[in-house]
Amino acid sequence: MMYKTHHCGKLTKENIGETVTLNGWVQRRRDLGGVLFIDLRDRSGIMQAVFNPEFSAEAHAIADRARNEFVIAVTGTVVLRDEETINKNLPTGEIEVRVTEIEILNQAKNPPFFIEDDIEIDESLRLRYRYLDLRRPEMQQTLMLRSKAAKAFRDFLDSEEFMEVETPILTKSTPEGARDYLVPSRVHPGEFYALPQSPQLFKQLLMVSGMERYYQIARCFRDEDLRADRQPEFTQVDIETSFLSRDQLLDMMEKLMVHLFKTTKGIDVATPFQRLTYDDAMNKYGSDKPDLRFGLEIQDVCDIVQNSGVKVFASVIENGGVVKALNAKGCGTWSRKEIDDLAPFAARYGAKGLAWIQVKDGEFKGPIVKFMSEEEIAALRERLGAEDGDLILFSADKKKVVYDVLGNLRLLVGRRMNLINDKEYKFAWVVDFPLVEYDEDAKRYVALHHPFTRPLEEDLHLFDTDPGKMRAEAYDVVLNGYEVGGGSMRIYKRDVQEKMFAALGFSPEEAQEQFGFLLNAFEYGTPPHGGVAFGLDRLVMLLAGSTNLRETIAFPKTASATDLMTDAPNEVALKQLEELHIRTKVKKEEKKSEPNA
Amino acid sequence: MMYKTHHCGKLTKENIGETVTLNGWVQRRRDLGGVLFIDLRDRSGIMQAVFNPEFSAEAHAIADRARNEFVIAVTGTVVLRDEETINKNLPTGEIEVRVTEIEILNQAKNPPFFIEDDIEIDESLRLRYRYLDLRRPEMQQTLMLRSKAAKAFRDFLDSEEFMEVETPILTKSTPEGARDYLVPSRVHPGEFYALPQSPQLFKQLLMVSGMERYYQIARCFRDEDLRADRQPEFTQVDIETSFLSRDQLLDMMEKLMVHLFKTTKGIDVATPFQRLTYDDAMNKYGSDKPDLRFGLEIQDVCDIVQNSGVKVFASVIENGGVVKALNAKGCGTWSRKEIDDLAPFAARYGAKGLAWIQVKDGEFKGPIVKFMSEEEIAALRERLGAEDGDLILFSADKKKVVYDVLGNLRLLVGRRMNLINDKEYKFAWVVDFPLVEYDEDAKRYVALHHPFTRPLEEDLHLFDTDPGKMRAEAYDVVLNGYEVGGGSMRIYKRDVQEKMFAALGFSPEEAQEQFGFLLNAFEYGTPPHGGVAFGLDRLVMLLAGSTNLRETIAFPKTASATDLMTDAPNEVALKQLEELHIRTKVKKEEKKSEPNA
Repeated sequence: MMYKTHHCGKLTKENIGETVTLNGWVQRRRDLGGVLFIDLRDRSGIMQAVFNPEFSAEAHAIADRARNEFVIAVTGTVVLRDEETINKNLPTGEIEVRVTEIEILNQAKNPPFFIEDDIEIDESLRLRYRYLDLRRPEMQQTLMLRSKAAKAFRDFLDSEEFMEVETPILTKSTPEGARDYLVPSRVHPGEFYALPQSPQLFKQLLMVSGMERYYQIARCFRDEDLRADRQPEFTQVDIETSFLSRDQLLDMMEKLMVHLFKTTKGIDVATPFQRLTYDDAMNKYGSDKPDLRFGLEIQDVCDIVQNSGVKVFASVIENGGVVKALNAKGCGTWSRKEIDDLAPFAARYGAKGLAWIQVKDGEFKGPIVKFMSEEEIAALRERLGAEDGDLILFSADKKKVVYDVLGNLRLLVGRRMNLINDKEYKFAWVVDFPLVEYDEDAKRYVALHHPFTRPLEEDLHLFDTDPGKMRAEAYDVVLNGYEVGGGSMRIYKRDVQEKMFAALGFSPEEAQEQFGFLLNAFEYGTPPHGGVAFGLDRLVMLLAGSTNLRETIAFPKTASATDLMTDAPNEVALKQLEELHIRTKVKKEEKKSEPNA
Repeated sequence: MMYKTHHCGKLTKENIGETVTLNGWVQRRRDLGGVLFIDLRDRSGIMQAVFNPEFSAEAHAIADRARNEFVIAVTGTVVLRDEETINKNLPTGEIEVRVTEIEILNQAKNPPFFIEDDIEIDESLRLRYRYLDLRRPEMQQTLMLRSKAAKAFRDFLDSEEFMEVETPILTKSTPEGARDYLVPSRVHPGEFYALPQSPQLFKQLLMVSGMERYYQIARCFRDEDLRADRQPEFTQVDIETSFLSRDQLLDMMEKLMVHLFKTTKGIDVATPFQRLTYDDAMNKYGSDKPDLRFGLEIQDVCDIVQNSGVKVFASVIENGGVVKALNAKGCGTWSRKEIDDLAPFAARYGAKGLAWIQVKDGEFKGPIVKFMSEEEIAALRERLGAEDGDLILFSADKKKVVYDVLGNLRLLVGRRMNLINDKEYKFAWVVDFPLVEYDEDAKRYVALHHPFTRPLEEDLHLFDTDPGKMRAEAYDVVLNGYEVGGGSMRIYKRDVQEKMFAALGFSPEEAQEQFGFLLNAFEYGTPPHGGVAFGLDRLVMLLAGSTNLRETIAFPKTASATDLMTDAPNEVALKQLEELHIRTKVKKEEKKSEPNA
């Protein structure tokens, strides 16, 4: 065959006069008065190939048989296009190749959708024919971006003397955390490996080993019910360091983000990142991953409305709840229907109703205003900076609900009022997360992050009195309303670790049984250490300007964890199960009634 | 705490006079006349810290409590050592740090073995305490080397415009090939994912997608009975290209190896690599992964001994076997016992006996000589270049046995006679492998590589008459007797693929059922493509000068696929199995009788 000498998209006017061979796919073919024009596509772009019977009757005849997505090789001369056929929309639009020889390398059936950007087709069809979907330039660019992003991470971490270490995929099931994927052992009947939810324990052991700076772009697995932005397997840039303070680590990670955004997209990210405590983030934005590209801060109004004639406010506060308000600047002009439509939106986040006030002609208007005193109105006006044209939205409930409702209303208003600059990348650290939270089902505290997260030094005294009030040296990296990474400084002193397990309700024996090998390791000289993990899929999604995580993954799975292209998972031969000493509990009937999507 | 300003092993005489803070582990502590000397170790090396009560009584008192493997922070001044305490064996042996402040960051129990190189302890103890084993400098250097090797691969492939693409770990079980690890699906009862034996199908699909140049440093899984140099999970550098000829690809891969060896170890690898056909490799060296650092080529002597008075030679040839000989240069002086000891060695590879001839004083000597004619002896002498002091070893059997026996005798002689230069790295390509081999059990041909390997163009006509004679465009990269990589050009034309499946005894329906999604993909414009995969574990082993694959892996498994540190695999909660719709077929009794190693 004729092997390519050049890439289609890389030829320029400099190549005029050269004889070149190109290989690629027929993007489209046109016949203009007996002359054939083929747009030839490879990974680099498109080049117009011209088949004029006057150059070669044979080549013209063969080209005439080529159809869309045929794979061809052409040899010819690079020439300047005629003035009238110049295509300013194409990087290679000023030149073309006059073909003297063509070889059809492979044929193609008509594809089920066009191989071009901005197609409007069902995603499941794209996933079934992923190998064709990935031919589309936007998908190629996203995967290229992902490859570049991985390289940017590696280059930076290498320059900071991080070692890449691979940790096992066939590892041990641990009872805390999310649901594990399990792998039956053939050699050890009745025993199972688990796929890692993260390399957490191994990276801490590498610090015990004295590796000091470790990273890995690691595949992680969680068998959870999938949301649109979750995948059963996902990729995290996993980082752990010894002998660094929290601030040294966070500073280094900021530089890493700057390098990533600069080298992949030429974007200048501003540093230092804003640092918000968890409490501040929740109080101001109703979220631990606030979108900071716009203001609209939430205000606490408990003190103002605790004796309000609006009975629901007063009673919520009396029962230990809170009342907070959001001034939706400029939304006071919305129609009654538009305002009423906010209630079902708020209900999705647990709101039982949605109280509101319009500010018009200097007056507060709305159903609840008549129950309010003059003083109340004046105080609210001041607290919220309420002006003509504003819409004040209230949430009164348990703290958690109020955060969720107002946090999401804030995002809705921000989007609807065009307060968000799509070109802006606003990073922040959310720090000082709670160490533990109370699990009503288990009737005990559970670790918010994991049981190896270090408490703040100044909160250590609370272990014995009020663990629920303790804060952790844990931090999340937040970007434009997404959590793109997170981590913590880890406990490295035996006595602190013991107190932590006691606070979580573990007996020393239970702790040993569940985390024995790590606890043992901790006794042999563990350095102070801490780390971060970044979600590569999500970062690439944000870099690509997409909102669909599946667009960033070459072969993703659906919400039911199915690969539509290979049809995995599937049934396997009985012999395979017998070798693994397992049997399925599924009868054929039972199975058939199971939904498949 | 006092965070490190410098790394222990990176301080030089240039730092004399500076105040530095170091963090690390106590390698050893000596008390010389009331002055304490601590060898402080971090990833970079060792620095001597001196605690003289005259500098700081407090620091001296604290240092006195430190024991081996304690984690400490010290601050002090870099000074030149006294003449008599200079240690020329240590890169930092001319300087020391006069400590004025010390902080014990963590204590350590006495480790189960010394944290130093060349320890003679049971490997299972090292694996159980892998986090301590990895503290030893030689293990740190090997993991560092592995990290560097991965980077060398990536940098080269990046410079050649390869894209890194991640392919799924949760994928589909396919019936051909080695045994799969399976993962039961919770969402789809009775169905299973399989862990990939390699990304083979996905990388070919990426070529269908037009990615042109793909790579991935990919984890692969094979549930096989493990030998010393196999692991249930291993890492391969997986590469696939479109629109390259075989020779273009092999040339590029040679440059890749040159880059790898140069940047990781400063070794200059000679190119072009020797290219041997499979037939040549087997005939000359009795192996498809010959060690080419020495000669000792095997000679066919069938024509000479076919009518020999040595009955076993004549009868083997009559029954379709072969007789080959190896001239073990210089081994003619071995004692009778040394020669006799070769027989049980040969028997391991299937030899029923081992005929031999010593050449002494111009004469052939040995039990079989008396059955040979003068002409036979003269012909053997010439064919084998036999001279005084030589030992000629014969193997007469089926071809496969003869290759194995003489190939391994050749290696034994090469090692014993010191013919092998340990510092030499001799690469070769073994090409033109057989396309298929006959499987006596299945009574059909099976693919030697896999069913998508392209046959040599000139052998295509044999599909209908004698597939067993067909050669494939498959190639292995061989280094010093190890296969370090391999690959092939792939079939990309539908008609060739159909003939291949027919040759393997598949009906078109069976082919569709087993490889449907790939066959379908092949209909939509598949480019000519081919690739390679390198074994990273094995390459790092060779770069590190080791012979144990486990030394190159941070957390390896034993021969029974157990992780001795975490104790994986292990039993899991019944609830987990129920969620996965499986049960184990193991009764407690049954399980207990199962050997655990």
